Amino acid sequence: MTDTEQLGTALAADRAKPKANKLVIFTWGGDLDKVWPTLILATSAAAMGMETIVFFTFWGLFPLVRNDVRLTGDNWMQKLLSAMHRGGTQHLKLSQLNFAGAGPAMMRKLASDHKVASPQELLELAQEMGVRLIPCQMTMDLLGLSREDMIDGLEEPAGAATALAEAQDAITLFI
Amino acid sequence: MTDTEQLGTALAADRAKPKANKLVIFTWGGDLDKVWPTLILATSAAAMGMETIVFFTFWGLFPLVRNDVRLTGDNWMQKLLSAMHRGGTQHLKLSQLNFAGAGPAMMRKLASDHKVASPQELLELAQEMGVRLIPCQMTMDLLGLSREDMIDGLEEPAGAATALAEAQDAITLFI
Amino acid sequence: MTDTEQLGTALAADRAKPKANKLVIFTWGGDLDKVWPTLILATSAAAMGMETIVFFTFWGLFPLVRNDVRLTGDNWMQKLLSAMHRGGTQHLKLSQLNFAGAGPAMMRKLASDHKVASPQELLELAQEMGVRLIPCQMTMDLLGLSREDMIDGLEEPAGAATALAEAQDAITLFI
Repeated sequence: MTDTEQLGTALAADRAKPKANKLVIFTWGGDLDKVWPTLILATSAAAMGMETIVFFTFWGLFPLVRNDVRLTGDNWMQKLLSAMHRGGTQHLKLSQLNFAGAGPAMMRKLASDHKVASPQELLELAQEMGVRLIPCQMTMDLLGLSREDMIDGLEEPAGAATALAEAQDAITLFI
Repeated sequence: MTDTEQLGTALAADRAKPKANKLVIFTWGGDLDKVWPTLILATSAAAMGMETIVFFTFWGLFPLVRNDVRLTGDNWMQKLLSAMHRGGTQHLKLSQLNFAGAGPAMMRKLASDHKVASPQELLELAQEMGVRLIPCQMTMDLLGLSREDMIDGLEEPAGAATALAEAQDAITLFI
Repeated sequence: MTDTEQLGTALAADRAKPKANKLVIFTWGGDLDKVWPTLILATSAAAMGMETIVFFTFWGLFPLVRNDVRLTGDNWMQKLLSAMHRGGTQHLKLSQLNFAGAGPAMMRKLASDHKVASPQELLELAQEMGVRLIPCQMTMDLLGLSREDMIDGLEEPAGAATALAEAQDAITLFI
C-alpha cells in the first residue's frame, strides 16, 4: 500500500464512527421530571468536556422565568396562561403523580436525602460549567416575556434555525 | 510535513465534527404542543436546505388523518379508540392546560396574534417545501387506517427500519 | 488532480454523511405507549445489525422491575411512590386514554389481533438479540431499588456519563 492508500483505509475505518463532542438538548417539557434529566445530562456532558447547549422552548421556558416574576402578558389570554404556570424552578410540577404538589415535594426530599442536586442547584452548576442556555424567541414572543423576566446568565434568545445549526454536529435529544 | 501528513491532519481536525445536513423527526405525540414544534423544526430545517423527514408514529399519526374522516375500525375497540381521537389538525389538544378545549383555542389565538403559523398552515408549508412526511405502517394497521383516510401528499407508509435507516446520517429528534 | 487531491475530494464528499451504525435510546417514560416504541425501535435496529443500547431512566425504569416485586423503599416516601407504580411490563399504563386500565388492555388486544408483539415479548426479544439494557444508577438509588429487584439480563447500572459516552457515535432518541 502507498501512504495515500494507507491513510485512506485508516480514515475509512475511522470515519464510520465519528464521535460528537457536543450535546444539544431541545427542552420542551417544563415539568420537574423533564427539567431534572435535562440538567443532569447537560452538566454531565459539560463535565466530560463537551460543548453543551440547551435550547429551552414551549413549556421548557418556564423554569427560566425569574422566581420573583409573575408573567404579565399584554392580554387576558397570556394572563390566564401565565397564572397556570408560575415561572422559576421552585414551582415545577411532576408530569405524573403530582398529588396537588405532594409529589414534587416528595421527589425533592428523596433527591436531597440521596444527595442528588435540586433543579435550582443544577441550573446554577450548568451556568458555572459554561453550559449555554438559550431561550426560544418564538415562545417568549408568544407568552409576552421579555429579557428582564428571565433569570441571569442566559444567551440571547434565538429561533429554531439557530438550534438546528448547532445540532448539526452534536448528540441531540428532545426532552 | 508531507502532503499526505498535512491532509491527514486537516481531515482529523475536521472529521471530529461532521455536519449532518438532514433532519429526521420521529413524531410520537399527537397533541397540539407536540405537532407545533415538529412542524416548526421541520420547516426551519427545510428552509436551511436540509433534507427533512418526519416519521409519524403512534398518537403522532392522528394529525395526518383527513379532517372529514371519522376513523372507522373493524371492531368496537378501534371505534372507541377512534372516537376519543378525532383526526386532523383542527381537533388537536394540548397535552397540558386543555381546559376542555379552551387551552388550544387560546394558543391558536395567541399564535395568530403573533403571526406564528397554525399547524394546518405549517403542514401545508412543509409539504410545499418538500419535507418528506411518512406515516408509520404499524400504527395504521393497529388503528385500521387505510391510505384513503389520510391527507394527500404523504409518502408511502413505512416501518421503524426505514425510519432508522434514514436516521443514520441525520440529526434525530423524538418528539 | 494528484492522488492526494483526489483522496481529499472523495473523503470530503463522503465525510459529510457518515452513517451511524449504533442506536442509543434514553427511555424516560414508563408508560405502555413509550415502552412500545422504545422496544420496537431497539429490536428493529438490532435486526439491522446496529449496536443497540437502551438506557432506562426515571419512569422508564419501572418496566425493568421484576413482576413479582413490590418496590420496598427505606421510607414512607419511597413506599408511597412505589405503591403508585407497580413494576414490570404487565402493569404499564397509557399516558393518554387510560380509562382506569381499559385503554392499555384495549391496546394489548389490538396489538395481539394484529400480531404486534407485547412489551414483555419485545423485551425478551431485545435481550435475545443482544440489545444492551442499562438501568440508570441514580434512579435506582432514588427509588431504593437494588439489582435483585430488577429482571435478569440487564447490564450493570450506570450513570448519565456512560450513556452520553455511548451516544457520541450513535443515533440518539429520548423517549
